[in-house]
Amino acid sequence: MKYTVAITIALKKGMLDPEARAIRHALQNLGFPTEDLSTARLFKIALDAADADAAREVAGQICERLLANPVIHRYTIEVE
Amino acid sequence: MKYTVAITIALKKGMLDPEARAIRHALQNLGFPTEDLSTARLFKIALDAADADAAREVAGQICERLLANPVIHRYTIEVE
Repeated sequence: MKYTVAITIALKKGMLDPEARAIRHALQNLGFPTEDLSTARLFKIALDAADADAAREVAGQICERLLANPVIHRYTIEVE
Repeated sequence: MKYTVAITIALKKGMLDPEARAIRHALQNLGFPTEDLSTARLFKIALDAADADAAREVAGQICERLLANPVIHRYTIEVE
């Protein structure tokens, strides 16, 4: 069966995020002050799998082997 | 009141996405074939606003003025 998995990859808490810092600074200058801003990557991938659990398992392998760096990233997987 | 807005910014349909293409190719080589893969950026921003509608309005301005390029990007806003 076909499943779509949504994978969100973000930096672990405590990792420096210079992009978020630059955006927060730019927003401040534009008149939109914010105390908290985080960035993440979102991937939607169509997968063939026997069931939703199998799709989640494949998505986890995709994160571990390609998309995420386990030293600095955390990821979440949603099967749609 | 404090709101967190989740802004998702993706390429419009039909725009070339070389990153998605490269990832699809790498997944093929790793044994995870997929016919459809899309990428997007996710921003979570804490905003002070009178109500959820006002927070959504501010998030829209942030997209238009800073985060998105309206020629190539589409964006969605969720207020949490």
